[in-house]
Amino acid sequence: MKILSENKCFGGMQGVYAHQSESCAVEMTFGLFLPEEAQDGPVPVLWYLSGLTCTHENAMVKAGAQTWAAEHGIALVFPDTSPRGDEVADDEAYDLGKGAGFYVNATEDPWTPNFQMYDYIAKDLPDLLFSEFPLDPARQSISGHSMGGHGALTLAMSLPGRFASVSAFSPICHPTQSDWGRKQFTAYLGADEDAWKAHDSTLLMEKIGFDGPILVDTGTEDQFIDLLMPEAFAQAMGQRRQQATLRLQPGYDHSYFFVSSFMEDHVAFHAEALYGVST
Amino acid sequence: MKILSENKCFGGMQGVYAHQSESCAVEMTFGLFLPEEAQDGPVPVLWYLSGLTCTHENAMVKAGAQTWAAEHGIALVFPDTSPRGDEVADDEAYDLGKGAGFYVNATEDPWTPNFQMYDYIAKDLPDLLFSEFPLDPARQSISGHSMGGHGALTLAMSLPGRFASVSAFSPICHPTQSDWGRKQFTAYLGADEDAWKAHDSTLLMEKIGFDGPILVDTGTEDQFIDLLMPEAFAQAMGQRRQQATLRLQPGYDHSYFFVSSFMEDHVAFHAEALYGVST
Repeated sequence: MKILSENKCFGGMQGVYAHQSESCAVEMTFGLFLPEEAQDGPVPVLWYLSGLTCTHENAMVKAGAQTWAAEHGIALVFPDTSPRGDEVADDEAYDLGKGAGFYVNATEDPWTPNFQMYDYIAKDLPDLLFSEFPLDPARQSISGHSMGGHGALTLAMSLPGRFASVSAFSPICHPTQSDWGRKQFTAYLGADEDAWKAHDSTLLMEKIGFDGPILVDTGTEDQFIDLLMPEAFAQAMGQRRQQATLRLQPGYDHSYFFVSSFMEDHVAFHAEALYGVST
Repeated sequence: MKILSENKCFGGMQGVYAHQSESCAVEMTFGLFLPEEAQDGPVPVLWYLSGLTCTHENAMVKAGAQTWAAEHGIALVFPDTSPRGDEVADDEAYDLGKGAGFYVNATEDPWTPNFQMYDYIAKDLPDLLFSEFPLDPARQSISGHSMGGHGALTLAMSLPGRFASVSAFSPICHPTQSDWGRKQFTAYLGADEDAWKAHDSTLLMEKIGFDGPILVDTGTEDQFIDLLMPEAFAQAMGQRRQQATLRLQPGYDHSYFFVSSFMEDHVAFHAEALYGVST
């Protein structure tokens, strides 16, 4: 593991690190905020998965999450959204290839060798984090924005017991029925739509749900709301009687000005779940 | 005035606008955060002047200031740091020309026609803001980072009665004696050092001081601290018996991770001064 930068921040440390990912077979970069409490022993972890076009850096500098993570003594992980490098396949579109891994394991060429973002988030990065940093694997929660909200919801439901709570900002809720999903799943997973179902949070909610609380915020003026389909997830959530809060926030759009406005709520929500889990 | 973007943010609105600056003779861009309270009438204003290489955007997305401005019902203005455009003179160095206006009025070619940043901040932009937005000219405070901290301190002292309070993050404190200052003042103001004195906060503190409270934060691990010379300003402040708080923050560097860590304190400091001024 390489240290790319470390800056003191809210009494803790905002670091950026690079490491070799076994699943993606390239060097990956991530951000990690450790609160001051990490100096005394393992702290709880909140994962934050980013959206289309983002790197590890966007949320790390724009979401204002460290303010609240420091207040609650929680670490923040900011992974990248895809493998990177000259040898990695890409597409001219902003919503496929680099910056658009969609948190799935590709089975189709040319994506197969490197685009293994599900395994990267579920396995590679946790292996590294819990061996290298004072983080408590028994206290993890997950959040994300847009494509990262999709990632947070699908990972939380498909890894039962891993996360104490899950939240999302403007998540892509029903990718098997949206242009933010069908195109990418066809490219990464192939034409057989059965393979897509494991990565659709509305379908996962219908089938298995989540054993813990969920918080989802979406802006009513989100310019992409027709692609996000919060109505599908809301319906599935209601049908399951899932413990959850889904809020439509009047006047807000898809930007980080929206995300940062409600970050305090999300971190407090996760803190309640994380500190309720015994270590 | 042109609206470039408006995003709802912490219950208020983060806008970006462009307008023709009379002093700089080019179109200038600025950010303005209006808290929710601005819907009911004029609100107090906190100016935030940015540092070298920044545009209006850096602090607007990285400083986390809207969180606290919304809490206190204060507007935030984020001006650019220089004139922009193909017709505007520039230099290859990052610390001269575009992104490096140093908040002075240039008297030397090729800078003279456009680099009039003192007048832009002191006159052009206020004229526009107070005619176009629900802002209270009787309740203004000013802050800034690095070169912008220099700008905040020098404008506050050279415009008596304008600002209720002034603060700075890692300000350039003594530019007439620093490589962050001598080079730029020579270029913009010429070789006669007498002309520089009006733009050195240590010299202004010795000569006139500030009729209100001052708050200055600098990181002990600031990689540019030898260029900032906080010791010079501290000495002058002490000698004058100026109402002021100067803090050296252990472990922090020059980055926005430092700025955002103490933004809550700075906005609260200004709020106290702004709400103590009758309208």
